[in-house]
Amino acid sequence: MINKTKTALVVSAHSADFVWRAGGAIALHTQQGYAVHIVCLSYGERGESAKLWRKGEMSEDKVKTARRSEAEAAAEILGASVEFFDIGDYPMRADKETLFRLADVFRRVQPEFVLSHSIKDPYNYDHPLAMNLTQEARIIAQAEGYKPGEKIVGAPPVYSFEPHQPEQCEWRPDVLLDITEVWDKKYAAIQCMAGQEHLWEYYTRVALQRGVQAKRNVGIASTRNIVYAEGYQSLFPRVTENLA
Amino acid sequence: MINKTKTALVVSAHSADFVWRAGGAIALHTQQGYAVHIVCLSYGERGESAKLWRKGEMSEDKVKTARRSEAEAAAEILGASVEFFDIGDYPMRADKETLFRLADVFRRVQPEFVLSHSIKDPYNYDHPLAMNLTQEARIIAQAEGYKPGEKIVGAPPVYSFEPHQPEQCEWRPDVLLDITEVWDKKYAAIQCMAGQEHLWEYYTRVALQRGVQAKRNVGIASTRNIVYAEGYQSLFPRVTENLA
Amino acid sequence: MINKTKTALVVSAHSADFVWRAGGAIALHTQQGYAVHIVCLSYGERGESAKLWRKGEMSEDKVKTARRSEAEAAAEILGASVEFFDIGDYPMRADKETLFRLADVFRRVQPEFVLSHSIKDPYNYDHPLAMNLTQEARIIAQAEGYKPGEKIVGAPPVYSFEPHQPEQCEWRPDVLLDITEVWDKKYAAIQCMAGQEHLWEYYTRVALQRGVQAKRNVGIASTRNIVYAEGYQSLFPRVTENLA
Amino acid sequence: MINKTKTALVVSAHSADFVWRAGGAIALHTQQGYAVHIVCLSYGERGESAKLWRKGEMSEDKVKTARRSEAEAAAEILGASVEFFDIGDYPMRADKETLFRLADVFRRVQPEFVLSHSIKDPYNYDHPLAMNLTQEARIIAQAEGYKPGEKIVGAPPVYSFEPHQPEQCEWRPDVLLDITEVWDKKYAAIQCMAGQEHLWEYYTRVALQRGVQAKRNVGIASTRNIVYAEGYQSLFPRVTENLA
Amino acid sequence: MINKTKTALVVSAHSADFVWRAGGAIALHTQQGYAVHIVCLSYGERGESAKLWRKGEMSEDKVKTARRSEAEAAAEILGASVEFFDIGDYPMRADKETLFRLADVFRRVQPEFVLSHSIKDPYNYDHPLAMNLTQEARIIAQAEGYKPGEKIVGAPPVYSFEPHQPEQCEWRPDVLLDITEVWDKKYAAIQCMAGQEHLWEYYTRVALQRGVQAKRNVGIASTRNIVYAEGYQSLFPRVTENLA
Amino acid sequence: MINKTKTALVVSAHSADFVWRAGGAIALHTQQGYAVHIVCLSYGERGESAKLWRKGEMSEDKVKTARRSEAEAAAEILGASVEFFDIGDYPMRADKETLFRLADVFRRVQPEFVLSHSIKDPYNYDHPLAMNLTQEARIIAQAEGYKPGEKIVGAPPVYSFEPHQPEQCEWRPDVLLDITEVWDKKYAAIQCMAGQEHLWEYYTRVALQRGVQAKRNVGIASTRNIVYAEGYQSLFPRVTENLA
Repeated sequence: MINKTKTALVVSAHSADFVWRAGGAIALHTQQGYAVHIVCLSYGERGESAKLWRKGEMSEDKVKTARRSEAEAAAEILGASVEFFDIGDYPMRADKETLFRLADVFRRVQPEFVLSHSIKDPYNYDHPLAMNLTQEARIIAQAEGYKPGEKIVGAPPVYSFEPHQPEQCEWRPDVLLDITEVWDKKYAAIQCMAGQEHLWEYYTRVALQRGVQAKRNVGIASTRNIVYAEGYQSLFPRVTENLA
Repeated sequence: MINKTKTALVVSAHSADFVWRAGGAIALHTQQGYAVHIVCLSYGERGESAKLWRKGEMSEDKVKTARRSEAEAAAEILGASVEFFDIGDYPMRADKETLFRLADVFRRVQPEFVLSHSIKDPYNYDHPLAMNLTQEARIIAQAEGYKPGEKIVGAPPVYSFEPHQPEQCEWRPDVLLDITEVWDKKYAAIQCMAGQEHLWEYYTRVALQRGVQAKRNVGIASTRNIVYAEGYQSLFPRVTENLA
Repeated sequence: MINKTKTALVVSAHSADFVWRAGGAIALHTQQGYAVHIVCLSYGERGESAKLWRKGEMSEDKVKTARRSEAEAAAEILGASVEFFDIGDYPMRADKETLFRLADVFRRVQPEFVLSHSIKDPYNYDHPLAMNLTQEARIIAQAEGYKPGEKIVGAPPVYSFEPHQPEQCEWRPDVLLDITEVWDKKYAAIQCMAGQEHLWEYYTRVALQRGVQAKRNVGIASTRNIVYAEGYQSLFPRVTENLA
Repeated sequence: MINKTKTALVVSAHSADFVWRAGGAIALHTQQGYAVHIVCLSYGERGESAKLWRKGEMSEDKVKTARRSEAEAAAEILGASVEFFDIGDYPMRADKETLFRLADVFRRVQPEFVLSHSIKDPYNYDHPLAMNLTQEARIIAQAEGYKPGEKIVGAPPVYSFEPHQPEQCEWRPDVLLDITEVWDKKYAAIQCMAGQEHLWEYYTRVALQRGVQAKRNVGIASTRNIVYAEGYQSLFPRVTENLA
Repeated sequence: MINKTKTALVVSAHSADFVWRAGGAIALHTQQGYAVHIVCLSYGERGESAKLWRKGEMSEDKVKTARRSEAEAAAEILGASVEFFDIGDYPMRADKETLFRLADVFRRVQPEFVLSHSIKDPYNYDHPLAMNLTQEARIIAQAEGYKPGEKIVGAPPVYSFEPHQPEQCEWRPDVLLDITEVWDKKYAAIQCMAGQEHLWEYYTRVALQRGVQAKRNVGIASTRNIVYAEGYQSLFPRVTENLA
Repeated sequence: MINKTKTALVVSAHSADFVWRAGGAIALHTQQGYAVHIVCLSYGERGESAKLWRKGEMSEDKVKTARRSEAEAAAEILGASVEFFDIGDYPMRADKETLFRLADVFRRVQPEFVLSHSIKDPYNYDHPLAMNLTQEARIIAQAEGYKPGEKIVGAPPVYSFEPHQPEQCEWRPDVLLDITEVWDKKYAAIQCMAGQEHLWEYYTRVALQRGVQAKRNVGIASTRNIVYAEGYQSLFPRVTENLA
């Protein structure tokens, strides 16, 4: 991965979050030549594996194994590398070791941009924790005094991907990413999530709605043929030399 | 102007606002080949010409003439065209005719992006009025049913430029525009404002502070040599195919 | 209408808004025995009739007539009465006479609840104007000193229905209305809007997404079979004797 | 009034607002030697005179006369001068003439501080209008170009006094004014409002609650004996040389 | 308790909070047949027992015992069951064991609705901690993977009860609960709090003020005779089939 | 220190923060006779000592020693006492012992007012932690039940000093402190920070900009000669007897 010029980092609280919420961005940038790396903090073994648990004769290990396979298959389709921190979910907690481990990933990957969860989510306390961990790890990785001598990271933009109930999470997209040309890949990755089939059509509709909004925001007379999109909220100002 | 491929529109409540707040953006995009057009809604004859009034033996007409000359000189330095609506200030009021007049400018200019004031400003009620007028004129110009048959406008991004006391205006920059290479032009334009000399150094410092912040937001290790910047707040989501 | 016990009032900026945004609520309450009355402030003749205008050989009168027919057909399907103020759109403006006319509707209808647009909408300035007009008309209608001797209105709850791009409008639903059992009626009413066919599936997906969210907010284990829903934001506190 | 050194200005939408909401501040500063001047924009003849209207055989003129007497009596008790603009209420509307009339009051009074309503109030649209008018009049009165040669006003702090349902109005007090020593005067002024007797105890409780909060915010161990207080929200930063 | 059909859960940071802030809701729902269960996370032994400490010859154990007796007496009057977690206050801290303990209470009680503190409170850091703990425990209790096989909880609505200084806590009531018919019980429960007698009249006034506001929000012409009320802020959207 | 009548407390996350952000307030109040005490939670050894680390042959101890010397020199110039908690930075974490240690400082100092960081800062997670620690320590120090018998603290106002990128931190100054007469001292203290020379002019410009704003907020016609200022955001309402 390090050989490629440009990289990106995605931090996913549970093993499927990166698929539903950022699968389009991952596939799109991979196609553009980025090496995209995904960190799954947990497998979502407790909180997001209801269907598996209902099968009976399950154990936490079995659930983790199943979820890991799904996530690896999805990552492969999207063209990204993936690693698993396995820090547990419901509740998720992150100590200093986890923070440094993620800071080290930042140092190793040197990402051009970073994706993680929304800052608030009253339905899921693991999600904001993941974003806060990501933000603090980025700050640590920027500090000359942390593991002095290593190459520090710059100031890559950080984006929150879309939570389940956006308005309740005070999440407001200021970026609409056109994922029309990679939609097939995203939908293929979505289909790896056998345990959450009820969400396949839900997230297809999310992509279609954001696509209509993207179309509106470039103007209905535009020739850009946008059908599917993903929404993102940026946490830092963008530095640019052009406003168009 | 219409021959050039790309265009931009700046709506300035008073005749000097575009210089202090958006002079860098105007010069930068002009240099990039944009035709930038400025609408000054008023000359700022009542509210922003204190020094002139204190000279004595002044009339509103004399003040307007002086302010117009300054604004034209500044626009010329920045490379932009300028027109004056002369609707009065302190208080500014806009009727339907003014709204349609501005919508017609939108139709004529077909801007790639639009700049105007902040949505709130407890120190200056003309500023939010100018932005609201700009937003509504853009909406009118998008409507097929307004002067049917004319070419409607698309959905150009709209940005608020920096107000005098940003935090009191609930203005938060999400774009920092690097204006380092055109700073000389902006400062030359600023110097046209003979009646507000006390603001020259103030706005130089604003540009330096935003420059430091821009530098921070690309990372201190970046090789980009940013010294001067302008802050902008975008009112609509950005549609893009790249997150870096 | 006045014979029925319970009533509701819907104020729609343009003639189709009530269908997309509140069609479910109208059909549902009609079915529950409410007399629902709709006021269309304009026909949306300029701003929301793009398809008609593109046909060529159009005039504002022809557009209005076509839009009125569509709206009447939709209202009939939903079981509601409808009247048209015809105050124009893009831009919409309301003088005191319009305000009193709407206040008089409040007095006549004596609604149990009121529906209108979101308080903010950067894509459409007519929408907030409609809501502000509605709120002020309600206040006038509550005043003993306005047409003294008439029966004043109480304090009916007021709800904002869903705007096109909710997060950009700072609209946050705090009520999810289960419209599953009247979805067929809403979809039939939607189909009356021949000029905006591209929105039929868009608003079907909106209803499905809000349905999934409603299901989540009653708990996935609930036996309530919610498929379609509409979101609403309440502007006043609810007075109740039960918190479940 | 002009002889006194220090002055203050209170702008009241309806003739009784200044009593309920700012009676303590008026009495307190009068006692401190301030000349406090009150502008009542309307008599509240339509919207806030329910009891009078219910008496029957009323006319708008009779209501105005009764309300004016009450307000004058209250102002006298509080030690303030009062004038009436009589621009009507429910709905209140202010044209340029009213704006200039109020700007002229600013010029004449040259207030050290200004009190008016909250910026938002979904229960009463006249209240925000009064505050916006006040703010814009202050801006006009500061402009050298408005009636050149007259003495302009400085930048007196502006405060919103407490609305009826504070949280619904997004009003947050950042100043708690100790009115314990003038409570008797405020309550005497309140009793002039014969038509709104149901509010006497309501506003006594408001004063007691704000008093308890003031006590909390100086520390329960403090020797300051605060019993009654009024809450205010400041619209501009305070300039000071001491933070205690 | 489990025999009864409907249940509710109240999580109180300190042993008296549930009385002042939710005593009316508890008594009202108990009277309606609900089994209401209260969890007191601490006795408020350090932070909210000033009067006891000032007696002298006190120990933390003595304070706890006194506070427990008061809380049990109050709960009995209100008709609710109560348990004490005794996790300490000033500062309050909750580890995973406390979280699971509370999640187990959710599983056992299966509440129809939940009451706890406001999300923010700059005067009291224990209060937001209690609410966050409550929200996360609810999430854990909803997860199939937590103690698989147990009956998970649904999605009961969660409400913040009123903090001491509402506006400073960014707390906005969107529900006003009419507690007029159980006010006697609430006041009797309040009188159990011998150590905080200065708050008896304070909270009586709170109830009267919210009562007046409730009356306003149903309309002054309403026949509902509301005198006392409690305010609540809901954290999740309400799912309903009726908007009146 | 305890002999002096009035005192103030400043809590600085890293050893230089108090200089850049509050140096003017410290010098000003010292000059007014206050005993100002500074707590530096860390030396900023990891996160804010980039220049030192780049020298090579550094260790954390050497960095700490250098930073301590700078901070002590700066504090001496400002006339304040200083102590160092040395709890580490990047990331900063505070356990109960640190909390009690700071609470004990509150008890010992009995401050008239307190200064610390902004509540939010996406660029620096240590800063909000410092402010939250400060707020909770103040609450502990107010509690009779914490170390019963000791003198509790009152309710000193707490202010956030200015973060690096104010708008991104949702920081809004409501107090502008005129530091013109002590600017020389602040700039001398700033010059002690040899390792951060790039910030000297940055913070000079911050002081000049806030100075211009302070001048604006007292009115341009004012005779107060304000050149340099510091901005502060207050966290609690101010209790006063005068609104001018």
